[in-house]
Amino acid sequence: MKNFLKDGERIDDLQLKLKNGKSAKIIQNPDCFCFGIDAVLLANMARVKKGDKVLDLCTGNGIVPLILAAKTNAEKIYGVEIQPDVANMAQRSVEMNGLTEKIVIECKDLKEYKGREFDVITCNPPYKEVTGGKISENRHIAIARTEICCTAEEVISAVSKMLCPKGTMFMIHRPERLADLIVYMRKYGVEPKSLRFIHPYMGKSPTMVFIEGKRSAKPKLIIEPPLYIYDENGDYTAEVLEFYCQKP
Amino acid sequence: MKNFLKDGERIDDLQLKLKNGKSAKIIQNPDCFCFGIDAVLLANMARVKKGDKVLDLCTGNGIVPLILAAKTNAEKIYGVEIQPDVANMAQRSVEMNGLTEKIVIECKDLKEYKGREFDVITCNPPYKEVTGGKISENRHIAIARTEICCTAEEVISAVSKMLCPKGTMFMIHRPERLADLIVYMRKYGVEPKSLRFIHPYMGKSPTMVFIEGKRSAKPKLIIEPPLYIYDENGDYTAEVLEFYCQKP
Repeated sequence: MKNFLKDGERIDDLQLKLKNGKSAKIIQNPDCFCFGIDAVLLANMARVKKGDKVLDLCTGNGIVPLILAAKTNAEKIYGVEIQPDVANMAQRSVEMNGLTEKIVIECKDLKEYKGREFDVITCNPPYKEVTGGKISENRHIAIARTEICCTAEEVISAVSKMLCPKGTMFMIHRPERLADLIVYMRKYGVEPKSLRFIHPYMGKSPTMVFIEGKRSAKPKLIIEPPLYIYDENGDYTAEVLEFYCQKP
Repeated sequence: MKNFLKDGERIDDLQLKLKNGKSAKIIQNPDCFCFGIDAVLLANMARVKKGDKVLDLCTGNGIVPLILAAKTNAEKIYGVEIQPDVANMAQRSVEMNGLTEKIVIECKDLKEYKGREFDVITCNPPYKEVTGGKISENRHIAIARTEICCTAEEVISAVSKMLCPKGTMFMIHRPERLADLIVYMRKYGVEPKSLRFIHPYMGKSPTMVFIEGKRSAKPKLIIEPPLYIYDENGDYTAEVLEFYCQKP
């Protein structure tokens, strides 16, 4: 195992049983890429049906494909990551979990990605515009958080090209970018169909928004009831706790 | 008073003390126009500063100007209504309350309105697209609810022309139209700055959305904490109750 892990890397247990009976594990590296709650929410809130071909853009260390492999009956899951060392970390996690038949990690720029048509595309893209404040000096963190390698418009343009007719996009983003996202989704023919705002606590403004868009769908937006992360005691709410646990 | 009221009309007490010491009253007619909670929320949630010149589009029987006259220090409030008999009802309410110096009711089509530049524009427009389902057989109700006389795009185009630089629009609408509204606001240079979703009960989807837009502002959207209309006992929440009562 020692040669398998690179400097600074560790293996975390996802507390999740895979369909092959194994316990899902993931390689992380705090200097390079660790997943956040955003990815966990995205993977759990995305609606994936049996037999779906799924594409996860900005896949990082592959957290979304891993959760989807455990919790859904997707036919096949592709994860695209632009940074070679991060994509390599994801690839090694896929191998370690025995999921090479189910998950394909590709190190590509999503702007140049030419894939098949996907039923579902998930994406947890960088949130901040390049002009949106301080950029991390850590290149990996900067790329994960700031629109250095792809902008929201480029992501949505790519999604539009890669969704099958009536295919669905699920994205998690910052509420402050919502107007941008809706305008781009309309521009590229991915109609916003539902929004769910994710609030840290009841009575607080949301810090994330979960967006569902459907290719070429008619306009009619549903706003779901709010999702709260923590209850009044600072513990995860029942709904979020279920995301972190195995479904029965 | 008998000649003052037309057939089917009644006078309702708004439980609101005007700045002239009178108790605010409003003429209503169930066959023609009665205000809803939407207008009460809009008038209470709109932020109007001392000295502001305010325009209320789709003013109906003038409910929003009357509440704003009681609760804010607006310099002058204009109310525009396209239906002559509804505008006339509003005008008589303004006279009855002794507010002719403060509120000007104009019977005009907002698409042709050429006003001065306003600091604040409020609007509670018809919600439903003409293609959006059954249209009331009552012409007045149809015009109030369905985009027969003006569409969301026409309203926002008009707002854009009539807001002063940095002026603010406050609108209440249906969540299902939010993507349309955001796209039109961007198109006409009224940047969405904040949204507040209005839910009937905690844990339910919102049935209304309160939108703040600023002319020529930079993009950065704030989502406010949800507003709930009723508590678990079916009573108005404290926040909504305050809207219906006089501020100290």
